[in-house]
Amino acid sequence: MREFPAPIHKAMAALSKLPGVGPKTALRYVFALLDLPLRDREILAQSVLELGGIKRCTTCFSFSEEPTCEICSDQRREINKLCVVAESRDISTIEATGAYHGRYFVLGGRLNPIEGQTPETLNVRRLLDRIEAHPEVQEVILAFSPDVHGETTILFLARQLKSMNRRTTRLARGLPMGADIEYTDEVTLGDAMTGRRDA
Amino acid sequence: MREFPAPIHKAMAALSKLPGVGPKTALRYVFALLDLPLRDREILAQSVLELGGIKRCTTCFSFSEEPTCEICSDQRREINKLCVVAESRDISTIEATGAYHGRYFVLGGRLNPIEGQTPETLNVRRLLDRIEAHPEVQEVILAFSPDVHGETTILFLARQLKSMNRRTTRLARGLPMGADIEYTDEVTLGDAMTGRRDA
Repeated sequence: MREFPAPIHKAMAALSKLPGVGPKTALRYVFALLDLPLRDREILAQSVLELGGIKRCTTCFSFSEEPTCEICSDQRREINKLCVVAESRDISTIEATGAYHGRYFVLGGRLNPIEGQTPETLNVRRLLDRIEAHPEVQEVILAFSPDVHGETTILFLARQLKSMNRRTTRLARGLPMGADIEYTDEVTLGDAMTGRRDA
Repeated sequence: MREFPAPIHKAMAALSKLPGVGPKTALRYVFALLDLPLRDREILAQSVLELGGIKRCTTCFSFSEEPTCEICSDQRREINKLCVVAESRDISTIEATGAYHGRYFVLGGRLNPIEGQTPETLNVRRLLDRIEAHPEVQEVILAFSPDVHGETTILFLARQLKSMNRRTTRLARGLPMGADIEYTDEVTLGDAMTGRRDA
């Protein structure tokens, strides 16, 4: 595709760094950017640069502009609950449910030795230190996705937390909203049966 | 999702201007950008700004940094053929085939009165002027996608070009590479039959 001006190729290459964006999608984005008003492009460029101002909260390791993030410094949050998540973005997903009002801790990934994710590369030590230093935390919720790496991480952390004498929980498994029993895999259906509740 | 720092929301909003990018994808992009080295973010921001330097070629209306684009100023291109396309990006797709060595003309869209695309909003007048001014153009290829708006545009332009006494052609229709006759729609199969060639 040598027939396009250099700036198009340069923008294409830069946009290809985004996850799931190959040359075709990148080119589509570039053409859309060319159709945008100059002002919108300036805002986009500016906002990308301003991401440099984002650090990690020193308490929960979520993204934050301040040394302590909004949630960690919010005195109205329940201090007896700590929800451990793999990534910062999981916090926004859980917050959107409105079903949790405690604090968070970002582990920085999930155990996956093949990809180099071990207890040492994750914030495991800091998590244990934090729980140890905060006796008011009565429940630790291990909010990881129920797949191989999530289960491994949950099992590992649950074992580490055993001696600390806190309630350790995990997210419920069962039928997702709108699911059809006929097309649900047997593991999920088994989980739903085991975890059945009074109607 | 108020619990994220403002720069994340700002970048999300800016990225949501890209086609097919909703809040979820935008947030995914933002997190990916946060994981990139600062240098990569700077390059992306810079490249978006540099898109401002791109204009339209005054001859073919394709994107170009110079008043005349690379293809229009390339003396090795066949000057007796002119390929009319809807958008600049179509040129790159056709160039990638290596099957065409003539020049191009970007119509700027396809006839679609409902969405306000009429002969007046498109470069129709300029196309006719260009062909009239260049008697060396012997063939005009109307390279539009074979759907309602493409067909309308082809019919319209073919009629306009009739009096100019040039050969007017369109892209062949038939079975796409790898197609299964059993699953091919009847129009395509009919086209393939009508346009059959010696084996």
